[in-house]
Amino acid sequence: MNVGAVIERMLPMLGERATPERAARVFWSGIAEPGDAVAGALLAVVPAQAALHMAADPAEIARVTGVGPRVAADASARWLPRLHDDLVTDALKRAHRARVAILVPSDPEWPRSVDDLGDHAPLALWVRGDPHALGASSVALVGARAATPYGEHVAGELAAGLAGGGVSVVSGAAYGIDGAAHRSALATRPGSTVAVLAGGCDRAYPAGHEEMLGHIAATGAVVAEVPCGGAPTKWRFLSRNRIIAALSRATVVVEAGARSGSLNTAGHAASLGRPLGAVPGPVTSPASLGCHRLLREYDAVCVTDAAEARELAGLGESQPLVVAGAWTNERTRVRDALSSRVGRDAGELAQRSGLAIAEVEAILGGMLLEGSVVGDVGGWRRRSGR
Amino acid sequence: MNVGAVIERMLPMLGERATPERAARVFWSGIAEPGDAVAGALLAVVPAQAALHMAADPAEIARVTGVGPRVAADASARWLPRLHDDLVTDALKRAHRARVAILVPSDPEWPRSVDDLGDHAPLALWVRGDPHALGASSVALVGARAATPYGEHVAGELAAGLAGGGVSVVSGAAYGIDGAAHRSALATRPGSTVAVLAGGCDRAYPAGHEEMLGHIAATGAVVAEVPCGGAPTKWRFLSRNRIIAALSRATVVVEAGARSGSLNTAGHAASLGRPLGAVPGPVTSPASLGCHRLLREYDAVCVTDAAEARELAGLGESQPLVVAGAWTNERTRVRDALSSRVGRDAGELAQRSGLAIAEVEAILGGMLLEGSVVGDVGGWRRRSGR
Repeated sequence: MNVGAVIERMLPMLGERATPERAARVFWSGIAEPGDAVAGALLAVVPAQAALHMAADPAEIARVTGVGPRVAADASARWLPRLHDDLVTDALKRAHRARVAILVPSDPEWPRSVDDLGDHAPLALWVRGDPHALGASSVALVGARAATPYGEHVAGELAAGLAGGGVSVVSGAAYGIDGAAHRSALATRPGSTVAVLAGGCDRAYPAGHEEMLGHIAATGAVVAEVPCGGAPTKWRFLSRNRIIAALSRATVVVEAGARSGSLNTAGHAASLGRPLGAVPGPVTSPASLGCHRLLREYDAVCVTDAAEARELAGLGESQPLVVAGAWTNERTRVRDALSSRVGRDAGELAQRSGLAIAEVEAILGGMLLEGSVVGDVGGWRRRSGR
Repeated sequence: MNVGAVIERMLPMLGERATPERAARVFWSGIAEPGDAVAGALLAVVPAQAALHMAADPAEIARVTGVGPRVAADASARWLPRLHDDLVTDALKRAHRARVAILVPSDPEWPRSVDDLGDHAPLALWVRGDPHALGASSVALVGARAATPYGEHVAGELAAGLAGGGVSVVSGAAYGIDGAAHRSALATRPGSTVAVLAGGCDRAYPAGHEEMLGHIAATGAVVAEVPCGGAPTKWRFLSRNRIIAALSRATVVVEAGARSGSLNTAGHAASLGRPLGAVPGPVTSPASLGCHRLLREYDAVCVTDAAEARELAGLGESQPLVVAGAWTNERTRVRDALSSRVGRDAGELAQRSGLAIAEVEAILGGMLLEGSVVGDVGGWRRRSGR
């Protein structure tokens, strides 16, 4: 194995930031499959060039990473066939043709959010478009390829609301929900959207989304952790989902059958401790079954509009909902009209608050739910201490 | 005031269980408005006849109940105008004509679940139909009068599933969701359903549901806490909702606008500590707004079918869902195929479990969500201790 020769060949293809260490790390992104925790652990403790020299030495891998000898041997066996490969130099040629930038963790544009993946963090990111787009505040909108018109409509509404408020929309460029989210963000000013691909970012996948991916690259970014030209294998689809979750402040599943792959993305968001949302839909729609499971069994937050998606992501509400705003305002008026000592009936509260009796009663219902009022035949009273 | 004379006149109209104490309690159900906590507190510590003799004596009311003098005076002032009234004897005549039975807490048919309302518990229950129906295991299905075809369809499905499994369906006989739930339960064998009315149980309200209420009385029960002939006032509608919640093991809101009265019922269920469920719907439907608020803000459980409503009510699942069953079964097979020591890829797990690779991957997604598996390029492993 002549690692040095590969590095030498790579250097002229790495642009103005080219260093042997950068070349070695980019080489690693072609050697290790996405999410290879042994490679992640190795590169966390040893410089990439030194790690290349250890790649064929399981004992040394085990020593520096602390993994068991069998795990180290397996890892080394996975890596060896690619150490002599010209996959990376081919990928760099493709990257040059497609104007793909390569980010490593030491770059200022590197999205720090993916570091939360620990040993499963990507070793490098191949980016078509603007690398800065990866660092924007973003929400992942994901869902089934087999989406319904309802799901695509809601994905579009959420994406437009987020992108219009300056929040980037991250998704996976698939047909169905992903495509609806990207397209809507693209159509929104100042919208930006990021597509994370399972294969190389220069390969349009699915092919029918080639034009859309071009538009995404022109205003946001198309990103992959596998080198250009890499095939979108099944494993890489599952691994890709962790990047979608990690890049985003929150993940919202818009529509998902009981076994949709987007539940996998939801799982990554949950295991990263990132907020997880699910959009409800008709219980009669199989396409919403997965979302309802997330609500029932996984404590996902019910998300019905872009403001709620922003709130989930801790990004506040740029445009408070008219309904929510009015509700809060009127609730305050009812609160003010209540006494904690004297019972008042809905008619008197309506008079004092300037609201209709029906409105007052509905608001009292909500307050009763919270335990902030008590009511009996002597009237409604504010519960003290609330 | 001659309380004794009223009691004397009532006795022949109270059937074989007639006693002066029973008559006094029934009299009280006409004197105090629903949910009158002072009356509740008084009758909790003093027999009903003795309480009648205290009704005009605020100082005595305050002494035995411990309420403040002003509260006692207000209560007495509310009761006095009805102490000379022949409202109760009129109500008993109407009850006789409509074959309405009257239950008091000492009766074996009294539904003990309403005792959880404490001082707000009903003083008596006027029942058209079978009093035993009130004691059945039941789930409240409530929702907006302004329901959509979707909401009525789901209410019907839930009611049929519950009633078909021997769970009684409690609701408020209103148009929309309530009516759809009652009708579907009526059409189901061995279905039983209970309608709780805000006015007297002999008055069909709404009038358009007169025939339906007759059917409900014939197989289940139509119940009210106000005496026969009582008008369904606004206050009584709100008070009625607490009876619906208290009679039921769980309350499920099927469809509710942002300010639906059914949110009031949900509030009562929550304050009673009874499980609260909400049926999701399209986020584009204003009729589901209230349900989504319950899911987002009040920790309501997402309920999509009758099995989940049963589960919410702690009544198990008589007919486990095919999807849920298959899921659990296949999940077990994937679990069995996993090792906690050796990583296995989806292909190998598919081979070992006899499932398709896509199924295995979807199940792994769910398990990843729970934290019961870990996966990296070395394959999937069961997380130990799970």
